[in-house]
Amino acid sequence: MFTDEYFMKMALQEAETALEKDEVPVGCIVVSNNRVIARSHNLTETLTDVTAHAEMQAITSAANFLGGKYLVNCTLYVTLEPCVMCSGALSWSQISKVVIGARDEKRGFINKNLQLHPKTEIVTGILENECSAIVKEFFKGKR
Amino acid sequence: MFTDEYFMKMALQEAETALEKDEVPVGCIVVSNNRVIARSHNLTETLTDVTAHAEMQAITSAANFLGGKYLVNCTLYVTLEPCVMCSGALSWSQISKVVIGARDEKRGFINKNLQLHPKTEIVTGILENECSAIVKEFFKGKR
Repeated sequence: MFTDEYFMKMALQEAETALEKDEVPVGCIVVSNNRVIARSHNLTETLTDVTAHAEMQAITSAANFLGGKYLVNCTLYVTLEPCVMCSGALSWSQISKVVIGARDEKRGFINKNLQLHPKTEIVTGILENECSAIVKEFFKGKR
Repeated sequence: MFTDEYFMKMALQEAETALEKDEVPVGCIVVSNNRVIARSHNLTETLTDVTAHAEMQAITSAANFLGGKYLVNCTLYVTLEPCVMCSGALSWSQISKVVIGARDEKRGFINKNLQLHPKTEIVTGILENECSAIVKEFFKGKR
């Protein structure tokens, strides 16, 4: 039951909530021992704050839940590949695993040759089509 | 009077405040039209949050002051070269100028071949010795 697809669907629900607010639709959740300990979506427009990406909020929220700044034994599920800022934050967090839906060839960290923490396992391509479609639809509507 | 050294001294005062709290001593300020609109220091331990670097707080705070998420006509003075996370945030902010005290060869963004926004002017080496010394003293005390 607790598959990567199962949790990515929850991250997609967060992305849909962002879409309803006319935010770039990216969502994420943090899971520890199959329990969701943080959920968030992009709020850069709502908060007028470029740092309010879904992942940044989730890292802060999960650390608050755990009472420690390192996200040991935690997995972050995110619908879109993290940007440079968010990859840097994930790296500082020493999170155990990051599961990515759609790739972001232009803004994502992978093509910039950035690494997360050596301890961090990275999985890509989970519900890739759905995660990609929601972002593409958003930007199509903006043009 | 309003030289880069003048404002870097204020950033150094912020770093000293961080030091008093046993935080890695990094401080920064944001200036708009020679007016300080944000000042902050590293609070990762105090807030138990890896995202609480001085620059991240300053970006959020300056955007809040300006009422817009882009830091147009703003200069950020920071005592230590920004990390990957903070360089990503600065890039999103489209800030006009970033003035750096000490370089951070290992953790800083420059050696990772990362760029800030094309609009952003970068100046390095302002009060470099003082900005470097406070960090070195901190880590010497930790060993």
